Amino acid sequence: MISIELTAEQKDAIAAVDAFCDRYFTEDAIKQWCKSRGVPSTVYNAFYESALGKYCLPEYLGGRECSLAEKSAVIARLCHRAGAMLPFVNDMLSMTLLDSMREVSRREVVEELLTKSGHVMFSEAFSEARAGSDASAVQTIVSVEPDGVFLDGEKSFVSGGQFSPEALVLARDPVHGLEDGGLSLWLVPIDEPGVSTYPLETVGQAMTAPATLKFDHVELRPEQRIQTQGKLDAMLKRQYELGRILICAASMGLALAAMDDALDHANDHMVKGQTLGTLPQIREKLADMEVRNRAMCQLVYVAADSVDKGLQRCHLDCALMKRAVPRMATEVASEALQILGGRGYTNQSRVGRIWQDCRGNQIAQGTDEVMVHLIAKSLMANRASERRVAEERIQQARTEQE
Amino acid sequence: MISIELTAEQKDAIAAVDAFCDRYFTEDAIKQWCKSRGVPSTVYNAFYESALGKYCLPEYLGGRECSLAEKSAVIARLCHRAGAMLPFVNDMLSMTLLDSMREVSRREVVEELLTKSGHVMFSEAFSEARAGSDASAVQTIVSVEPDGVFLDGEKSFVSGGQFSPEALVLARDPVHGLEDGGLSLWLVPIDEPGVSTYPLETVGQAMTAPATLKFDHVELRPEQRIQTQGKLDAMLKRQYELGRILICAASMGLALAAMDDALDHANDHMVKGQTLGTLPQIREKLADMEVRNRAMCQLVYVAADSVDKGLQRCHLDCALMKRAVPRMATEVASEALQILGGRGYTNQSRVGRIWQDCRGNQIAQGTDEVMVHLIAKSLMANRASERRVAEERIQQARTEQE
Amino acid sequence: MISIELTAEQKDAIAAVDAFCDRYFTEDAIKQWCKSRGVPSTVYNAFYESALGKYCLPEYLGGRECSLAEKSAVIARLCHRAGAMLPFVNDMLSMTLLDSMREVSRREVVEELLTKSGHVMFSEAFSEARAGSDASAVQTIVSVEPDGVFLDGEKSFVSGGQFSPEALVLARDPVHGLEDGGLSLWLVPIDEPGVSTYPLETVGQAMTAPATLKFDHVELRPEQRIQTQGKLDAMLKRQYELGRILICAASMGLALAAMDDALDHANDHMVKGQTLGTLPQIREKLADMEVRNRAMCQLVYVAADSVDKGLQRCHLDCALMKRAVPRMATEVASEALQILGGRGYTNQSRVGRIWQDCRGNQIAQGTDEVMVHLIAKSLMANRASERRVAEERIQQARTEQE
Amino acid sequence: MISIELTAEQKDAIAAVDAFCDRYFTEDAIKQWCKSRGVPSTVYNAFYESALGKYCLPEYLGGRECSLAEKSAVIARLCHRAGAMLPFVNDMLSMTLLDSMREVSRREVVEELLTKSGHVMFSEAFSEARAGSDASAVQTIVSVEPDGVFLDGEKSFVSGGQFSPEALVLARDPVHGLEDGGLSLWLVPIDEPGVSTYPLETVGQAMTAPATLKFDHVELRPEQRIQTQGKLDAMLKRQYELGRILICAASMGLALAAMDDALDHANDHMVKGQTLGTLPQIREKLADMEVRNRAMCQLVYVAADSVDKGLQRCHLDCALMKRAVPRMATEVASEALQILGGRGYTNQSRVGRIWQDCRGNQIAQGTDEVMVHLIAKSLMANRASERRVAEERIQQARTEQE
Repeated sequence: MISIELTAEQKDAIAAVDAFCDRYFTEDAIKQWCKSRGVPSTVYNAFYESALGKYCLPEYLGGRECSLAEKSAVIARLCHRAGAMLPFVNDMLSMTLLDSMREVSRREVVEELLTKSGHVMFSEAFSEARAGSDASAVQTIVSVEPDGVFLDGEKSFVSGGQFSPEALVLARDPVHGLEDGGLSLWLVPIDEPGVSTYPLETVGQAMTAPATLKFDHVELRPEQRIQTQGKLDAMLKRQYELGRILICAASMGLALAAMDDALDHANDHMVKGQTLGTLPQIREKLADMEVRNRAMCQLVYVAADSVDKGLQRCHLDCALMKRAVPRMATEVASEALQILGGRGYTNQSRVGRIWQDCRGNQIAQGTDEVMVHLIAKSLMANRASERRVAEERIQQARTEQE
Repeated sequence: MISIELTAEQKDAIAAVDAFCDRYFTEDAIKQWCKSRGVPSTVYNAFYESALGKYCLPEYLGGRECSLAEKSAVIARLCHRAGAMLPFVNDMLSMTLLDSMREVSRREVVEELLTKSGHVMFSEAFSEARAGSDASAVQTIVSVEPDGVFLDGEKSFVSGGQFSPEALVLARDPVHGLEDGGLSLWLVPIDEPGVSTYPLETVGQAMTAPATLKFDHVELRPEQRIQTQGKLDAMLKRQYELGRILICAASMGLALAAMDDALDHANDHMVKGQTLGTLPQIREKLADMEVRNRAMCQLVYVAADSVDKGLQRCHLDCALMKRAVPRMATEVASEALQILGGRGYTNQSRVGRIWQDCRGNQIAQGTDEVMVHLIAKSLMANRASERRVAEERIQQARTEQE
Repeated sequence: MISIELTAEQKDAIAAVDAFCDRYFTEDAIKQWCKSRGVPSTVYNAFYESALGKYCLPEYLGGRECSLAEKSAVIARLCHRAGAMLPFVNDMLSMTLLDSMREVSRREVVEELLTKSGHVMFSEAFSEARAGSDASAVQTIVSVEPDGVFLDGEKSFVSGGQFSPEALVLARDPVHGLEDGGLSLWLVPIDEPGVSTYPLETVGQAMTAPATLKFDHVELRPEQRIQTQGKLDAMLKRQYELGRILICAASMGLALAAMDDALDHANDHMVKGQTLGTLPQIREKLADMEVRNRAMCQLVYVAADSVDKGLQRCHLDCALMKRAVPRMATEVASEALQILGGRGYTNQSRVGRIWQDCRGNQIAQGTDEVMVHLIAKSLMANRASERRVAEERIQQARTEQE
Repeated sequence: MISIELTAEQKDAIAAVDAFCDRYFTEDAIKQWCKSRGVPSTVYNAFYESALGKYCLPEYLGGRECSLAEKSAVIARLCHRAGAMLPFVNDMLSMTLLDSMREVSRREVVEELLTKSGHVMFSEAFSEARAGSDASAVQTIVSVEPDGVFLDGEKSFVSGGQFSPEALVLARDPVHGLEDGGLSLWLVPIDEPGVSTYPLETVGQAMTAPATLKFDHVELRPEQRIQTQGKLDAMLKRQYELGRILICAASMGLALAAMDDALDHANDHMVKGQTLGTLPQIREKLADMEVRNRAMCQLVYVAADSVDKGLQRCHLDCALMKRAVPRMATEVASEALQILGGRGYTNQSRVGRIWQDCRGNQIAQGTDEVMVHLIAKSLMANRASERRVAEERIQQARTEQE
């Protein structure tokens, strides 16, 4: 049944987020965390000690078995409450990656990557300036030389890349990557000689602390390599799909935060003796924002659900979601900013930050533009087979009729 | 749970529609019916004799108890299959009105208004050129004079107004309308002296046969009056809400028809040795059309469901739906027309007709513009109470913390 | 200087149009002409006998030397006054083609194609269902057989194709078309054996009377051939460019007509005791319509002017214009329709017709979509050379500085 | 004549800007100036010593007599070259205000406000958080008390408010403001007791250094008052109109900068062996960006010209411009950001900053929303009188005809 009601599990998840945020999130704190490019470790620890940690942690470390729809609800609500992109999105992604890695890799390496409190000890160094989310364009390279194995290249948009002790590096690798389309994965401590890290100054999303990591002839030891046994491509695809869902959940949460602020302003702000929300132009904006909020909600949870259930249409659902949700979220944030006026353009409100944070998600994890191809092909193929079935059915009906 | 899956009941309804359409609907037939401004009586009778009639008829005449979500699925699928607005939308509306009337009115009058085969014997003469769907602006008037009671005025956009033997006329009535805010309802045979009917040439929707009805000092007999006992306003409101849902279901169906045709053309049409659907600009259009289709689907079924369940948020859901769905449907149809190119602008395809039919629903049953006020007020009030609750909860959490 | 002032010549042209329209155009007449798919011959003759004929006729037949900017002003104003696409657009195009043909072809053939009163005696049978405005995809073919030369194929969207005594047919022609990329041009009387004509039922633009012409082994005589001497491609390109300008001028005129009607309605229509135009949502629409009107005006006249002057950027200007103007015009018409509400969706107003007529121009003479490639390539090339110049200049400035 | 050609004067202005920028503007410098919230004084002095100073300075201080169209060209080009909002926009505004003030005020006060080098010595403290550009809502108040005249209140969005030695404060003033609708103007040194200044952290436009100024019972001396003699309202209106033009010129310049960067990236960036600019989706974006650039160019220069000439339609032209230009500029910048992808979202390119700077101009000097009323009223009135003229003319034509 089509509905906008959340499940009982999702409502529980949201209540857990609220309990956490009621205690730790204030606008002043969030502003401070943006400036310092991260959540302070006390809050970070509290997060993993609270009920919320369970939604992130893998099951063998005490996490609860929970659906993507629940995870999405957690992320959406966290970003809704913060009015900002949070590093927990990346943590959730990395922990899922750990789970994938655990199946193919040596257990002990993986276990080290999580502290008992649930801290993720590595960053995902996958993207490159010229490659975006396209693995085939990776230029960072592993070369086997007489005196050792070496890593050279540059990774970009590595969330938390300066703060995590290790980086999980995706590289071209003609030697070790034979089973995996010429790619391999390595864990590289960032204090290794030859590794340098730089903060990446982005338009928004400061709390995710994106960094550039440079590898200048960094020596690699065999035990740093993550075994992938021909499953790397599948792991990466799953990772991107998951990443898209969580990012879209985050975008939706940001839009809902902007909506709250716009509604509050419409309720509170007086213009010539009337509340702002009595002005028809403002009302029109609010109505069209809510139309988008509804659409986002459906797109995110439908995609999460169809990935959870392993439905065939899950790739279409994810691509449609990624195409539409981040853009809609930015639009909602921009309208909220306009409703707040001058205040919206300053840090006296959070809608400016929300608008900036939203914009990044239109690019991260595959731009709006690349989704189009997958979507159109899938729709065309679906229609072709549907049409064939319908034509046969009609043919039969007409035959019977005669 | 948020989903795009239809219920088993909705799937049954769609299968019933398909069985009917497989037999009676061809593009040539539809074209002909548009020219003759109506469905031929053989098809009309077949409709009410088929399983579909049950979805329209009131229960006491053999109809099945079915939800608005099912009725919406029937209408959406019928319009999807026809690629045109169908008079069955109005029938379904009128039958619901009969049901409302039956509760307050003399049974025998009502019963006469349906033939055994399920034909609706009256048209709804509610709208006026200057009143739209705003009952308070009605100008048609009932006057009590020494020699009788008389009706004067002009009704517009009366679907099937020339074909139904009787018109159900909403009029200002200072005498009989005392309990109903100065309004009363009368059944007026259209062959009565003083009644004249004219076809209304519209941009599209020819099959619904909109007409203008003029009443020039038409004498009214007491038995023509429909008893409303102070419930007229509630009846009309229910009627408009239902009307909005069915019209939006029809718009969604039209958009899906346009989508099918666009996908077929993208699959079949060759441009320089490639199918049209390989062109990225076409793909982009298809993707964005599908995003709208998904949004329409959710908005319609959520509204139908919340009216069915009598939820408090049903007015908001209906207004959001009416604001967004008809516009999105026109946009989808326009993009389909563009994809079909010259062919789309001629009657060699049906997308031109679909585009024209869709456009009318942006105006019918309350324009996009009037929805905005209800939506914004409702959103602002919801937010205000949500905020109060949250602030109290946070206050409590902080107190406990100390 | 950038301005929205028209030139004195353009103002004269508009005054001439107004004098003609004041006399011959009424909404009832226009409605009638749409039904009969053409302007009656009395009006047609009056047009060519009036000052307006001079703007269409070639100079050697008494036409005045006038710029494209003037011609565009004439077409825009005619469509503005009529609120409909008029066949004069096609006449103007055909006469320009005559001029082109005259330079390369035998004079006498050409002269016959215009009556003394200025009637164009032929229709342009260039488009095909699968070819649109793409000459390279033409499928109508001339074949040289032992018993003669024959024409086979089907032309579509031939304006006035049923009413003009002759059709000017563009065909693939491996024998005669050697100098012209395998294409040739033939004048074919439509009463010739093997020629059949059908009206093309379009969504709008009925007055231009689009037709389908079928040629089934039609024998061609040598004197029917138009000499093109290797200049056919240039002739066609010029024709398409001119066609685009006139169609966009017509679109602009249609939009201005819709704007007038919307403003009149906003001034006249009362809602709860206030004029409609006091409602902020209506005001917003009007403002955004005017922004589009201004943009259209600039795009059309800049393109006309740069073609007139033979500027290098004329192809870019034309493509930008064709990309944006017809779409903007449809949007303006759609908003006007919405402002007029129910009335706008019926033939009680002309905005419905305007909306339908506008839509066709988004497809005619090259869809919005095909313009994109020419535009982007041209912008990229311009920028590359501009950048080179700037870099050299900066380099030099910095050298001098040291 | 409608054209996109700039005048010789405008081209000279642009050449002067280029000569200055070639020497002083590099992306590294601009980044640095944004961080330090202003242009360094060496560059500032160089600006006023160069030919460009003449475009800003009033004539009696050596400025050249130049039109608003030239001033707009200067501002547009400066922002185009910088890819950032520059404080020179505010300087130009303040100097025009000086000119207005000079006519009504004591010469000596005014003269002091400019250093010989052309520095503007005061900031415009007009806006308030709750008043925006609406003078009637000003809350800062001048009160006459037994022990003196005092100023209390808070001004917001004061460009350069922390760096200019004096602030020109607009205040409610029941005593001195009698002739000026209860408002008066005062020059207040920012080191006066009771004055405090705070930087205003905005989403963008850091170089204009917006500040909040608080006045806590600041004593005012009579000589601080600017005489306005009943002309304050006219001065402010002129100032807002001028401000709107310069802000829109700046927005247009920013959009052109974003366009350059997008085209460069489309030319340079390789995707799978092809330049990015060969992708149809990118081409579509570029085409639609250019359509907007053309529209902006016309709207700005038409408005500038009609204010220069004192045309009656200048208020309409300005409002249309302010409604459309800043929004279009943000859209162009957003598309450029999308074309640059990840790079566009970081400070490795300037399009992120451009996008942020553009957004502010949708709010500054009157939001998009407030323009709508002036525009619609003006369009409706124009149409009403145009219609009257046309009806009389047609009436006359028809009479003569008979």
